Amino acid sequence: MINAGIIGASGYTGGELMRLFLNHPEVNIVAATSRKLAGKPVSGTHRHLKGFLDLKFQDLGPGEARESCDVAFLAVPHGAAMDIVPELLGGDLKVIDLSADYRLKPDAFKEAYGFEHRDPRDAVYGLVELHPEVAEQSFIANPGCYPTGASLAAAPLAKAGMISSVIFDSKSGVTGAGIAPTETSHYPNMAENVQAYKLTTHRHVAEFTQELNRLDNSLTNISFTPHVVPAIRGILTTAHVFTKDKMSTDDVRTLYEDMYRNKPFVRVLDGLPSLGSVRGSNFCDIGFEADKRNNRVVVVSAIDNLVKGASGQAIQNMNLMFGLDEKLGLWNAAAAP
Amino acid sequence: MINAGIIGASGYTGGELMRLFLNHPEVNIVAATSRKLAGKPVSGTHRHLKGFLDLKFQDLGPGEARESCDVAFLAVPHGAAMDIVPELLGGDLKVIDLSADYRLKPDAFKEAYGFEHRDPRDAVYGLVELHPEVAEQSFIANPGCYPTGASLAAAPLAKAGMISSVIFDSKSGVTGAGIAPTETSHYPNMAENVQAYKLTTHRHVAEFTQELNRLDNSLTNISFTPHVVPAIRGILTTAHVFTKDKMSTDDVRTLYEDMYRNKPFVRVLDGLPSLGSVRGSNFCDIGFEADKRNNRVVVVSAIDNLVKGASGQAIQNMNLMFGLDEKLGLWNAAAAP
Amino acid sequence: MINAGIIGASGYTGGELMRLFLNHPEVNIVAATSRKLAGKPVSGTHRHLKGFLDLKFQDLGPGEARESCDVAFLAVPHGAAMDIVPELLGGDLKVIDLSADYRLKPDAFKEAYGFEHRDPRDAVYGLVELHPEVAEQSFIANPGCYPTGASLAAAPLAKAGMISSVIFDSKSGVTGAGIAPTETSHYPNMAENVQAYKLTTHRHVAEFTQELNRLDNSLTNISFTPHVVPAIRGILTTAHVFTKDKMSTDDVRTLYEDMYRNKPFVRVLDGLPSLGSVRGSNFCDIGFEADKRNNRVVVVSAIDNLVKGASGQAIQNMNLMFGLDEKLGLWNAAAAP
Amino acid sequence: MINAGIIGASGYTGGELMRLFLNHPEVNIVAATSRKLAGKPVSGTHRHLKGFLDLKFQDLGPGEARESCDVAFLAVPHGAAMDIVPELLGGDLKVIDLSADYRLKPDAFKEAYGFEHRDPRDAVYGLVELHPEVAEQSFIANPGCYPTGASLAAAPLAKAGMISSVIFDSKSGVTGAGIAPTETSHYPNMAENVQAYKLTTHRHVAEFTQELNRLDNSLTNISFTPHVVPAIRGILTTAHVFTKDKMSTDDVRTLYEDMYRNKPFVRVLDGLPSLGSVRGSNFCDIGFEADKRNNRVVVVSAIDNLVKGASGQAIQNMNLMFGLDEKLGLWNAAAAP
Repeated sequence: MINAGIIGASGYTGGELMRLFLNHPEVNIVAATSRKLAGKPVSGTHRHLKGFLDLKFQDLGPGEARESCDVAFLAVPHGAAMDIVPELLGGDLKVIDLSADYRLKPDAFKEAYGFEHRDPRDAVYGLVELHPEVAEQSFIANPGCYPTGASLAAAPLAKAGMISSVIFDSKSGVTGAGIAPTETSHYPNMAENVQAYKLTTHRHVAEFTQELNRLDNSLTNISFTPHVVPAIRGILTTAHVFTKDKMSTDDVRTLYEDMYRNKPFVRVLDGLPSLGSVRGSNFCDIGFEADKRNNRVVVVSAIDNLVKGASGQAIQNMNLMFGLDEKLGLWNAAAAP
Repeated sequence: MINAGIIGASGYTGGELMRLFLNHPEVNIVAATSRKLAGKPVSGTHRHLKGFLDLKFQDLGPGEARESCDVAFLAVPHGAAMDIVPELLGGDLKVIDLSADYRLKPDAFKEAYGFEHRDPRDAVYGLVELHPEVAEQSFIANPGCYPTGASLAAAPLAKAGMISSVIFDSKSGVTGAGIAPTETSHYPNMAENVQAYKLTTHRHVAEFTQELNRLDNSLTNISFTPHVVPAIRGILTTAHVFTKDKMSTDDVRTLYEDMYRNKPFVRVLDGLPSLGSVRGSNFCDIGFEADKRNNRVVVVSAIDNLVKGASGQAIQNMNLMFGLDEKLGLWNAAAAP
Repeated sequence: MINAGIIGASGYTGGELMRLFLNHPEVNIVAATSRKLAGKPVSGTHRHLKGFLDLKFQDLGPGEARESCDVAFLAVPHGAAMDIVPELLGGDLKVIDLSADYRLKPDAFKEAYGFEHRDPRDAVYGLVELHPEVAEQSFIANPGCYPTGASLAAAPLAKAGMISSVIFDSKSGVTGAGIAPTETSHYPNMAENVQAYKLTTHRHVAEFTQELNRLDNSLTNISFTPHVVPAIRGILTTAHVFTKDKMSTDDVRTLYEDMYRNKPFVRVLDGLPSLGSVRGSNFCDIGFEADKRNNRVVVVSAIDNLVKGASGQAIQNMNLMFGLDEKLGLWNAAAAP
Repeated sequence: MINAGIIGASGYTGGELMRLFLNHPEVNIVAATSRKLAGKPVSGTHRHLKGFLDLKFQDLGPGEARESCDVAFLAVPHGAAMDIVPELLGGDLKVIDLSADYRLKPDAFKEAYGFEHRDPRDAVYGLVELHPEVAEQSFIANPGCYPTGASLAAAPLAKAGMISSVIFDSKSGVTGAGIAPTETSHYPNMAENVQAYKLTTHRHVAEFTQELNRLDNSLTNISFTPHVVPAIRGILTTAHVFTKDKMSTDDVRTLYEDMYRNKPFVRVLDGLPSLGSVRGSNFCDIGFEADKRNNRVVVVSAIDNLVKGASGQAIQNMNLMFGLDEKLGLWNAAAAP
């Protein structure tokens, strides 16, 4: 059995890690930390876990984590992980960081986040379908939610060198903004609404760029505009791709089926994806259509932002890091409708 | 392994049986029937099952079902099951009927449904927490969605002989009305709305009455008004109970904790239930408060209508009928939030 | 023209007063106060009013209000109005208090709110359909949102002396809880949910009791349980009435049509009400059904909590206080669907 | 007073015309036609109009319409209007066609709709803000919902000759698909979902192209992908514009403020638009941001698809055709939140 600790377990990704671990045959949750809620029962915050977990939140130091855990998941705010990771690494403990801290190369990080990285260390970017080398790592930077859906939507076209420019227009559920109530998440503001934000400046674009450039380093024309939609979970990403040559939908299908043939969590559809068909699951569903008149392909991907966009992908990484089947504990269908 | 057949698999309860079976270690789905969709892939209708099931809908006769299956689940419309069940029973096949056909005694059936039962046979009512005799049966009438949440909400008070009268005011998600689009289920009509219907005449009241009378045969004052709310899944039932004597909230708690102590799928809460905390799961969460000034207790229960209110409970019944742990394949936390 | 001032204009009821005044031919908004937002444009907070209002929030003293306004609307928290009202009254200024402060007789107030009233003065309860004396007043206590829908649902049966006991089970939209984000109003918690609260202790029951007792002072068995539902606006109230004698639905209809014949904002329906059909409007729609087997009638009412349940009703009161047609500025159909 | 007839009044745009006319001081509704519902009360279908309208649906011939009406609004399916319009025009009757039949030049029509136009006649395209010549017309083709929001979002940049290419990614409420329940509009499919459709082939793109080409006939690179979102009303359009030169957000603002200075129904915002702020109103709210690093501007527009996207705009056209203030009967703020 793998002893897992969750550093920063009071938020949505922490809760989702625990929900998923409950059905993982090889994992014990040994610690769930929260400074603020230390001593309080985990099921007081994550009430759906009542009856499954007797755990209380702790305030666990790095030393204790290294002693009691085989793997630590960091579900802390951006900027906090870089102060914790150096104290966790170096021994036997495997670490999966769900924050943004180690996803970008130091220069790209500074540009996106506006300050110098305090622990400029290499990490493998844990987008499993694009990074088979995950299996050998002890430290993984788990991808952002938008970058997961966007990168998977565009990767086969990028790898084929077909992309001239791409605009990602993403529609995210409200849990993407976290567990704390805000003006945007206030039901009367969010219901029956669609809210665009950070039209040209969302930091996640740096992640797509880095990933897509690994597949095609000549590709620079990448844009991204996120929106919040009235959904609890899920991200639908519409990738508007201008291609170098004209393609048919069948041409596109060949590229996607080839790339994702042995990737169990990517489903290349005949039709178009829906958030309902991935809700609560670790799938990324993808559909597309080539424009008959122009050098243009539209690709749509759907993920659950808390599963494939965060905690599920983190467990998929863990499975591979420990030599397990990547599907272990994750092979569930969406609770649709 | 148990070979399971689903008769009438194109609707929501059929889809949910399959979703849940995918994580059941002892069940093979050997047949999913639909006359209308025979020959078409199951994952064309239940798209979230893509990648899990290669099955096609069949048009399976009773003889074939008896041959190929160990257990048959009937997810057919009310009135249809009574023509199928007699042809399935009598051999080794175990049968669980999710329709309303065998839930009521023949007289009560005639009064509620307006016609004479064509197969007036006894069946155990599969509300597991109230019917331990389920374990020895080969034929079970699986309870209705409203009756499950309502009966569990009131049973401890009924068993204690404390109920003078009770009004169940239920709020159901839209899947309760089935997979076919209707004027009520049309998003512009249902979103941002609450729709009361059948204010005094919903047939399910006959089920509660039968169940609560088993616990207290002097109890006759039972009323029920259902509503549809803007939720995909879930039923919240508010039971307004007038009690014979004044009770404290602690008195109530004692009754509920005693009755549900060893019932893993009923959670007696300190607070109040939410649909989110049971979504996709087989739990019935219950909270309550006694009125300090009157002989009155308000009890609130929450279930997922497709799981504990239908397919999950059917599997819970199957587990017991086959001598398995009732939790097998069902021990999942809700996908909350 | 009537010069209107809104004391406490930063919340939902303040915004709604302004929205409605924009179409009122006899009203000028001369002041909108907010201590916290003084100096900021009103349309910065109430963004839908952009283009209609150049007004800035002010911090207006009572003396200034008496000087510049013909009518003042108090949209302040409960407990705050009783310190402001005494300074506003006494001159020509008419005052409509949307808070709870003056709705109850002092003893009932103390019991419901737990402290002694600091300004125990009589006010007419502005539920226009039940209080024709509104027309002669200079000070009105505007009813609560739940009490409006509940009182109108039960009044004809109460007036006829037919009610033996009544339980109000209300389902409210989220704006009922105000403009400030909370855990309950957080979209991931509220969407796809129904949340019961204060099962037996909501203060509004004191208002119904006072109102229904005016119509039948022998009626004491009144209960109330509120719920929040995933809707921005609206309250659907299901009144479960036990009657002294058996009634037919036609008997009920006669009572309701008689009582509401000349009440333009109450629509007695043939069918059942929906929140959509009253959204944004000042209507209270009512439908009902008598139980054929028991002494029981179920009545359902629907209002928009911000209009008939607050600001619209306040303007209806104002119209009558100033000798205008009660429909002035309010005679709009709901924006349905 | 203007006598108005609505041909095809049983759907959403028909209902919305009537709702808006109720507050129009210069309009009498003299006829609402529906072959299917002839003889039935209008308020049986449009239940929110109960108490306002005693009208019954009629089956009105063109001759009768010409006799009884001053203006006829056609709210009929695409392809049906072209058989009715020729019989209505020629006399004094003014006609506003809300169908797609006369929006495109005959060649463009044939390409988009796949068949030869049966009445190839010129009509002014009633996008008021771009077509001041509306005022002198007796026949207007009322714009489509998507083209209204999209054209207004891009027009100032097109007029300035700044657009190199533009992709419109639109998010529409469910009423855009009409009053008839479908699989897409089924609440369990639509809630908590975002559904892309017709990724590269939606016919409305022909309308944008025609309109934007009037402003810049060199502009050919126009793409469009529509989505349905869980909202009753509203369209949010995100226009991803690649510009010929680099622009600042202030440059953009100057263009938009100049073009829309005297257009009361277009509000150029400092921030970003929301569907709530236009719900039920005739406004088009617009916000934008220039990308600091690339030749790229993102513009977001929000309209209510049933008002500015259909019936409100039709009335705005009518006002101008009859020499009235374009705001008459339409000058209402959104019912926000």
